[in-house]
Amino acid sequence: MRPVDVVDRLLKDRNRTPGTEGRAYAPVNIALCKYWGKRDRALRLPVTSSLSVSLPELGADTTVRPAETADRFILNGHPVPATDPSATRLSRFLDLFRGDPHPHFEVCSVSTVPLAAGLASSASGFAALVLALDAYFAWNLDRRALSILARLGSGSACRSVYDGFVEWHAGERADGMDSFAEPLRRAWPGLCVGWLRISDAPKAVSSREAMERTTSTSPLYRAWPGRVANDLHTLRTAIREGDFETFGRTAESNALAMHATMLDSWPPILYWHPRTVEVLHDIWRARAEGLPCYFTMDAGPNVKLLFERASRPDLCARFPGINVIEPFCIRS
Amino acid sequence: MRPVDVVDRLLKDRNRTPGTEGRAYAPVNIALCKYWGKRDRALRLPVTSSLSVSLPELGADTTVRPAETADRFILNGHPVPATDPSATRLSRFLDLFRGDPHPHFEVCSVSTVPLAAGLASSASGFAALVLALDAYFAWNLDRRALSILARLGSGSACRSVYDGFVEWHAGERADGMDSFAEPLRRAWPGLCVGWLRISDAPKAVSSREAMERTTSTSPLYRAWPGRVANDLHTLRTAIREGDFETFGRTAESNALAMHATMLDSWPPILYWHPRTVEVLHDIWRARAEGLPCYFTMDAGPNVKLLFERASRPDLCARFPGINVIEPFCIRS
Repeated sequence: MRPVDVVDRLLKDRNRTPGTEGRAYAPVNIALCKYWGKRDRALRLPVTSSLSVSLPELGADTTVRPAETADRFILNGHPVPATDPSATRLSRFLDLFRGDPHPHFEVCSVSTVPLAAGLASSASGFAALVLALDAYFAWNLDRRALSILARLGSGSACRSVYDGFVEWHAGERADGMDSFAEPLRRAWPGLCVGWLRISDAPKAVSSREAMERTTSTSPLYRAWPGRVANDLHTLRTAIREGDFETFGRTAESNALAMHATMLDSWPPILYWHPRTVEVLHDIWRARAEGLPCYFTMDAGPNVKLLFERASRPDLCARFPGINVIEPFCIRS
Repeated sequence: MRPVDVVDRLLKDRNRTPGTEGRAYAPVNIALCKYWGKRDRALRLPVTSSLSVSLPELGADTTVRPAETADRFILNGHPVPATDPSATRLSRFLDLFRGDPHPHFEVCSVSTVPLAAGLASSASGFAALVLALDAYFAWNLDRRALSILARLGSGSACRSVYDGFVEWHAGERADGMDSFAEPLRRAWPGLCVGWLRISDAPKAVSSREAMERTTSTSPLYRAWPGRVANDLHTLRTAIREGDFETFGRTAESNALAMHATMLDSWPPILYWHPRTVEVLHDIWRARAEGLPCYFTMDAGPNVKLLFERASRPDLCARFPGINVIEPFCIRS
């Protein structure tokens, strides 16, 4: 099945005539159990389920309007050249939704994700775009359908249509209609995510390429789905019980396992910088000295610490330059 | 089965009355396909086979003599206190061989392995000790029996009773009588091994503990034996055909996979220092620029480069401080 067929099915009987403007916000999310490996590349269907927490303060605020002769993208006030790879990717995604009249779109997006934070912005970007399209066309789709549409833009975007803890069900169907995210509906008021920027240099290997190289060349990857099934179960239980130690340990170990499968690939993929290793040893030392802190990492050199509010002063003293967000404590 | 039963079987009908002196030399070896995980701890039986190359210039020259009232160990001219863990380990190993009269041993060992080279010396140490015991008691055992006895002291020591490429067959028997090393009888005259010392600080986690933690906690380790089976096959073929690219790639990937299983363990094990990551990126950069070089790493922060003689000048210019050995070119 092609993405356009998925869209046609979800938008059956829905309006394809655009309005004048649609606007929406979506947060970034950090995976605690990683999405690593696709079973269908075109539909962005994952090998395994995954689990994330959204960071409500950081995200994309996106407005969709009709455009005259061609798509126009404005990011943080600056036009994105049509030849830019991100513009090409967006236009290809928008091909799935072109209305009549006004087949072209102007997409203005303001990202509150600090550039160089080492936080993937494509998840919040595609989620906000899908939510804005829903408003623009007045589809009034349910969240499940919106999650599937966001997934077609960027896999992990399907988790960014919700706040809080979110699980993306891998699903089994070839058409991906059972591969969407759902909120866990559990809050963890004292939870803190602190990110440490190590580098914002462009990555030599894109996450997408790393994921594909891993699934096609890493022998150890064969054991990844079994690990994820266990990690998801453990994380859900730890979240339900508010068991921070199990929560942190499982998230940290899952992230390290993802990096392990990259090392096991050929050519090997190592996103870490020397400073990354320094930070990991610092975190383990802090923990050995009694500070309850864990970390997660995505496909990059940066490190995201996980801790509870009670440890926040100690953590900030120990890791100057850390940026802390409390995902369940939304600023008014 | 206990180690003492293995020894009794191998030494059946052999002399247990010591002579006056036995002396032997054994080289260190570097695994190209790693020994990582035991199926029997007491007998040091491995989960998988492994393959190494001996470094003939580096090793242990060991002399065994009778001692009066207790074991005495002299390493590089300095007595080792009986309370030292290495002395305890040696005495426990020697318990398997005590003769009558003179149940005690004086073991003098001179190691040509530079301290702080980051090269495991226990393999050459136990191999040389077993060979020296064979001479001391005039057992005249064959190499297979000597390899098994060395294995009882330190797993990888069973490979150090040979020069050149050596394969340690995992074996299947519970008594380990089919778990011994054999030489591949293939030379690679231009092969170079260059080691880069990154740190000689004591390791926070011993190799033995790391191995045990990996087998008992790493979910990805389940896929390790399948990887090793493929890597061994590929390495044997590459050695037979003199295919350096395949040889280097397989050794490097196998080493990274071993470190991957450590990352996947809990608590995670990361022997790397920031400098290790710097060196890995340097090697990959050199390779991307056309220099055919690969690396292997053991359970520690140091890096061992693999290259051919033709690349030696470039490698030495690029990695000042590298120590190069040509395993198939023995200095006279």
